[in-house]
Amino acid sequence: MSLQSSLNHKLGSKYHNIRSFTEKITAPLETEDYVVQAGPDVRPPKWHLLHTTRFFEKNILMEYVPRYSPYNEHFSSLFTHERGHSGQLGASFSRPTVKEVISYRHHVDEHMMKLIEKLNPDDHRDINRLIEMGLQNEQKHQEQLLADIKYLFSTNPLAPSYMKEPEDFSESIPFQEPSMIEMEGGLVEFGFAGEGDAHEYEGVRQKVWLNPYSLSSHPVLNAEYMQFIEDGGYERPELWLADGWELVQREGWNAPLYWRGNGGDWQLYTMSGERKLEKYEPVCHISYFEADAYARWKGMRLPTEAEWENAFELVQREGNFAEKGLYHPSWKDVSMQGPFNKAFGDVWEWTSSLYATRPKATHAAGLSMQEQPYSRSNQFVLKGGSCATPSSFIRPSSRLVSEPAKRVQFSGFRLAKDL
Amino acid sequence: MSLQSSLNHKLGSKYHNIRSFTEKITAPLETEDYVVQAGPDVRPPKWHLLHTTRFFEKNILMEYVPRYSPYNEHFSSLFTHERGHSGQLGASFSRPTVKEVISYRHHVDEHMMKLIEKLNPDDHRDINRLIEMGLQNEQKHQEQLLADIKYLFSTNPLAPSYMKEPEDFSESIPFQEPSMIEMEGGLVEFGFAGEGDAHEYEGVRQKVWLNPYSLSSHPVLNAEYMQFIEDGGYERPELWLADGWELVQREGWNAPLYWRGNGGDWQLYTMSGERKLEKYEPVCHISYFEADAYARWKGMRLPTEAEWENAFELVQREGNFAEKGLYHPSWKDVSMQGPFNKAFGDVWEWTSSLYATRPKATHAAGLSMQEQPYSRSNQFVLKGGSCATPSSFIRPSSRLVSEPAKRVQFSGFRLAKDL
Amino acid sequence: MSLQSSLNHKLGSKYHNIRSFTEKITAPLETEDYVVQAGPDVRPPKWHLLHTTRFFEKNILMEYVPRYSPYNEHFSSLFTHERGHSGQLGASFSRPTVKEVISYRHHVDEHMMKLIEKLNPDDHRDINRLIEMGLQNEQKHQEQLLADIKYLFSTNPLAPSYMKEPEDFSESIPFQEPSMIEMEGGLVEFGFAGEGDAHEYEGVRQKVWLNPYSLSSHPVLNAEYMQFIEDGGYERPELWLADGWELVQREGWNAPLYWRGNGGDWQLYTMSGERKLEKYEPVCHISYFEADAYARWKGMRLPTEAEWENAFELVQREGNFAEKGLYHPSWKDVSMQGPFNKAFGDVWEWTSSLYATRPKATHAAGLSMQEQPYSRSNQFVLKGGSCATPSSFIRPSSRLVSEPAKRVQFSGFRLAKDL
Amino acid sequence: MSLQSSLNHKLGSKYHNIRSFTEKITAPLETEDYVVQAGPDVRPPKWHLLHTTRFFEKNILMEYVPRYSPYNEHFSSLFTHERGHSGQLGASFSRPTVKEVISYRHHVDEHMMKLIEKLNPDDHRDINRLIEMGLQNEQKHQEQLLADIKYLFSTNPLAPSYMKEPEDFSESIPFQEPSMIEMEGGLVEFGFAGEGDAHEYEGVRQKVWLNPYSLSSHPVLNAEYMQFIEDGGYERPELWLADGWELVQREGWNAPLYWRGNGGDWQLYTMSGERKLEKYEPVCHISYFEADAYARWKGMRLPTEAEWENAFELVQREGNFAEKGLYHPSWKDVSMQGPFNKAFGDVWEWTSSLYATRPKATHAAGLSMQEQPYSRSNQFVLKGGSCATPSSFIRPSSRLVSEPAKRVQFSGFRLAKDL
Repeated sequence: MSLQSSLNHKLGSKYHNIRSFTEKITAPLETEDYVVQAGPDVRPPKWHLLHTTRFFEKNILMEYVPRYSPYNEHFSSLFTHERGHSGQLGASFSRPTVKEVISYRHHVDEHMMKLIEKLNPDDHRDINRLIEMGLQNEQKHQEQLLADIKYLFSTNPLAPSYMKEPEDFSESIPFQEPSMIEMEGGLVEFGFAGEGDAHEYEGVRQKVWLNPYSLSSHPVLNAEYMQFIEDGGYERPELWLADGWELVQREGWNAPLYWRGNGGDWQLYTMSGERKLEKYEPVCHISYFEADAYARWKGMRLPTEAEWENAFELVQREGNFAEKGLYHPSWKDVSMQGPFNKAFGDVWEWTSSLYATRPKATHAAGLSMQEQPYSRSNQFVLKGGSCATPSSFIRPSSRLVSEPAKRVQFSGFRLAKDL
Repeated sequence: MSLQSSLNHKLGSKYHNIRSFTEKITAPLETEDYVVQAGPDVRPPKWHLLHTTRFFEKNILMEYVPRYSPYNEHFSSLFTHERGHSGQLGASFSRPTVKEVISYRHHVDEHMMKLIEKLNPDDHRDINRLIEMGLQNEQKHQEQLLADIKYLFSTNPLAPSYMKEPEDFSESIPFQEPSMIEMEGGLVEFGFAGEGDAHEYEGVRQKVWLNPYSLSSHPVLNAEYMQFIEDGGYERPELWLADGWELVQREGWNAPLYWRGNGGDWQLYTMSGERKLEKYEPVCHISYFEADAYARWKGMRLPTEAEWENAFELVQREGNFAEKGLYHPSWKDVSMQGPFNKAFGDVWEWTSSLYATRPKATHAAGLSMQEQPYSRSNQFVLKGGSCATPSSFIRPSSRLVSEPAKRVQFSGFRLAKDL
Repeated sequence: MSLQSSLNHKLGSKYHNIRSFTEKITAPLETEDYVVQAGPDVRPPKWHLLHTTRFFEKNILMEYVPRYSPYNEHFSSLFTHERGHSGQLGASFSRPTVKEVISYRHHVDEHMMKLIEKLNPDDHRDINRLIEMGLQNEQKHQEQLLADIKYLFSTNPLAPSYMKEPEDFSESIPFQEPSMIEMEGGLVEFGFAGEGDAHEYEGVRQKVWLNPYSLSSHPVLNAEYMQFIEDGGYERPELWLADGWELVQREGWNAPLYWRGNGGDWQLYTMSGERKLEKYEPVCHISYFEADAYARWKGMRLPTEAEWENAFELVQREGNFAEKGLYHPSWKDVSMQGPFNKAFGDVWEWTSSLYATRPKATHAAGLSMQEQPYSRSNQFVLKGGSCATPSSFIRPSSRLVSEPAKRVQFSGFRLAKDL
Repeated sequence: MSLQSSLNHKLGSKYHNIRSFTEKITAPLETEDYVVQAGPDVRPPKWHLLHTTRFFEKNILMEYVPRYSPYNEHFSSLFTHERGHSGQLGASFSRPTVKEVISYRHHVDEHMMKLIEKLNPDDHRDINRLIEMGLQNEQKHQEQLLADIKYLFSTNPLAPSYMKEPEDFSESIPFQEPSMIEMEGGLVEFGFAGEGDAHEYEGVRQKVWLNPYSLSSHPVLNAEYMQFIEDGGYERPELWLADGWELVQREGWNAPLYWRGNGGDWQLYTMSGERKLEKYEPVCHISYFEADAYARWKGMRLPTEAEWENAFELVQREGNFAEKGLYHPSWKDVSMQGPFNKAFGDVWEWTSSLYATRPKATHAAGLSMQEQPYSRSNQFVLKGGSCATPSSFIRPSSRLVSEPAKRVQFSGFRLAKDL
């Protein structure tokens, strides 16, 4: 086997593994589940299947495979990620059927595998970059798929669950009280520094001055967040940003998404249905507004992206990621990571860094404008990946970006403080 | 066979025929089609299947069959016809699955057939009234199902069609110019006068004075309505009620629902997909506002319910109803009905009579409040049934009630004038 | 003095009296009060002053006075009664100043008086009709002015009052229990039957059949309405039209407009400020939805316009009108009017008759389209005039038309029942 | 004269001068102008008069003057700066009248002057801090008053103007092509560093690393901005933040606020009415979205607050401020300020720094929570002051904060670039 064919084989395996993980995620769904859009912040699962596939067809097959004609010419204008429409209902069309969408996926995969098989060093580079980008896109949508399915099931009056409660998968270790880990700061660098292309939302390497600061040793836990609630956290306007407070009142928020019941006896809706709230799990499905209000209540603040990245750059990227199949943050999955009990995985962690005004790394050439990410004036950066993020997607410079009111994704936070 | 068992057999057949017509209507759908709510004025097909079945389970099986326990206790609170919610999205849950809903229908049908088989004269009367009411409800929803499916398919970018273009089913007769048929009026009666129970929306018999008036010999045709459009009908505020004009501007209306293209070359979306607009079909999918504006443009007016009913009380109720399977108004299906070329069938005809303030006939006892129809301050009465109405549902006193902005149902109109 | 000059003199006096009553109404206002629009259902007082004056300038002075040039050419496009805008904020411009608007009124009045003085029989007829129409318009706006000022003052945190509590102006008579007066009905006529022109909203004379019915001897009183509230009237959806119930929930209505406090101890905001609710005054500032719900609660209904007019056609038009200066319904002002204790005045009475579908009387020629009244699909007819209506504006066929949710005007109701 | 009485005299003069400048600003208004709220982003002038006065009464007179009783106890709850209400109509009450509000101002001023006269060294410090804060608040509202009056007049159909076109007040100097001034950056400090208290929105002193960058020598001019418009700037989504683009489409923006006409022949609405657009004036009334889109179009970016402040810290604070009485940005008022042609004054300059996440300087003690500034998640920092800002209000660390969609204030921008 030549070097080239070995490289091709490796890329083919990667392609296959990532693409089939999407289908593993949707396997427990009924046909009806694929079609329904349960709210303005989520999308029907079918949309994700189609949208990710279209990336490969449009940007690779149609550009690089001679005489390739699209599976269905209407698909290309269907289910796009239209600028400005992310919050609107209407993406839930009944046709194409799920069966046809699956068929489309297989058709594209077949052509992609043939293409990969025959790649030669000359054309390898550009196509390879596009394939990598398509696979990152697939992984980003896998995480959204899991979040969207959770929301869909949670809003169904028949209370379906996505999977059985998972068996314990690791030794439990004794609970550690959170502590504030001191960081000396100084003139540091952060942002993407590797070879190859940056990810879609990643930042360029940049220099920044950090005053000495401390970071909590693990993300805020349910037990800690309950104290905030019990202390009237959702009833005290002085703790909130003004637009956060308006939201709390308009929506009647009094706890994180998926918390049910009341203070005495909280239940939690999980991928395995509703069950008792575990005190020592990281709090999850938290908006920026809630994280910010909690930090103000504690007399602390959220870290900046630079502070977060500076602390965790050298820490091993192990943790509770999607491959574990828990799809839920867990205290059990802990290994000491430097001085921190938890760093990567479990929950994406909000930072106080505004996405729109940060320098961005450049993207692979050859993509049409429409594929480029777009940003809003008030999206914040989250770091570290979650229990629904494929682990290969994550490195210190990886970012999720989200608006401050959103909490459908697996998001939590960690506290910071000036020294 | 005793008289009773013969009656029971007859009722059983009627029950079976009407219930299975619902399934005939949904037969061409894909699973995905059952679940999607395509807009605020329509409901997902699955909702209709469940909602109509629940009538029989809740009001009959649970009341009259000892030890009957509900198929699924959650269904009774699911998919209700909640007061005030008719225009809101959200009825489209992914679970129960379509398969389970069908299974529920069969379960209820089985128990209903057993009950009907054993009816005896003593209990016959009340249960019979409730079964009749349930079957009328089923038929009302069959018509809505057809309208909702049409709308669902029309909004799908892949442009599916529900059925093939039907073959001509009758001899074509020469087109007749519409004429105004004179009616002498006077002190007349209208409203339900038969034996047995009135239908859900029917009015009581009442006396009314009618000044001499005339009615057009058939509903307004596409060709006539095109003249209204060409004369700037949708651009002249003085022709419209103020709230109608606001609607026209807000929604950008410039033609009836399902008309596509423009004045030179109109296309029409039908149950068989898009095709050329036929000039001599009755205009269909018209709102009250449009009917009212057209009449003002013509220097005429819409008839009152009493005028309509007085004119057609003695006319034969033959016409283009749902059983014909056209699901589309047609000029071809014409027989002279008294002096009128068309009376019943094809399109429901708007009248200027407000529903809320009309005396209503009373309903079968034993129904809980929630099953009672509720009304809004501005619903108008439509008469005569349409190509989507089962023919047995229709008699002169039958009514459809609808808000003036709605045009998803198969609605048209006829002109009236004082003499 | 010739007959002509005597007629002219009479018309001049009438013009002067009606126009100056407008200024009498606004006399207690501060400059700031003229400008503010306190809500979507009301207009700033300045708007009324300008709008009514513009009628005379545009339709009479500019048409019939040679070389008359408008006071300010911008005024004609300012403050129009734009179709569809009745509910929107925005009419409250700071310029022209109040002083300039008053100056405009005087300018127009001066020219009008000169014109009236010189009228001769030839031109008298058309101009006379237009003047009459302008004065009716003025009177309609006088009533709105009073309602708008009341609303403006009621929403001011400093709780200003428009006038002192009026002295008792008539002998009090003993309270009469309401009774239901029987009417035989039959084939009757109603609508405008006089000589000359109909008013703006009046109906043509028409024949109608009335079944025997009864009408309550006086409008529903506060004491009676309190029983409805105490019986949970605002909490029982089954009593309400569906859109009325939505409104009650959305707005949190639990009593008529201007009722303050709670069941044990209601206070009422009046033109003289807040004071104790008088039990035996007719209930006022009631929406159609509330009147309709009350009637359903009583097992009765609202009368039709024909029923109302048939009952009161021969009754004397005396009562508590605007000239009395009370601007508040009162039990004290009662004289027996046929079998009725109260008929005209005090409160406009809601009927169940829809305005849009009623035949209308024709208007004076020569008016541009924009001056024509326009209607919505769900406006109902009110009858009888109120304590804010100039008495000369009222006759049996007079109508106020209003949407079912509105209650800023002085509106109440009376019950009806089939015999 | 003792030192203390000399200090008191100086403070008294300052108080008098600043307070009376507010009345100088409102002097050209008619009574009606004080009351109207012309849109959601502005407030009625009367509100500013009352709101600023209440600061002194509530926080100083009622706290430090024995037996002082409030002028009107209702005023304290009236016209507050209620959290979350900044964008809503409703602040425009007709009462108290303007006359009464002026009277209230004089009453408070009289008591304040007496208090200041008698200050002694012991109590001087706290009260002095509060007076300073109140005067800064007054100056902030003076700027808003000017912006609100401009907007009010601009929306009036009679097109009033606030003042005559001002005479040229300085020598015109030749137009300078803008150039990019290079800054070496490095580890620098910025934020408030003086003695005494920071202003309301000022930031604490902090260290930051700046890569080498350049800043344009003067703010973007009308002539430059016209090129952006002519190049389709308002029609190209790729230039805009997603929420900015939604705004542009929803509002139909195609130029800065107050630009009228079209590309060939722009007119500008100014405090002196509408006139020809001057090419070499700084562009004004620009939203963050527009500034950001322009910068992207230029291949540049907006500066951060630190970059802005680092460049201008040592530059003289001279320029076109409110005292000049122009209330309009001007090219004529130019003196070289270091290498820059313009720095302070003319227009507030947008930066890309998010206000909510910046450390804030602490405020004078003794203020109730309600007086504290509150922030939203997406307010950006503007720097440098404008032609409507009193000059004593401005120093390098001064900030204006505003949401990205707002452009009623006198806001412009300057470009930055990495070196």
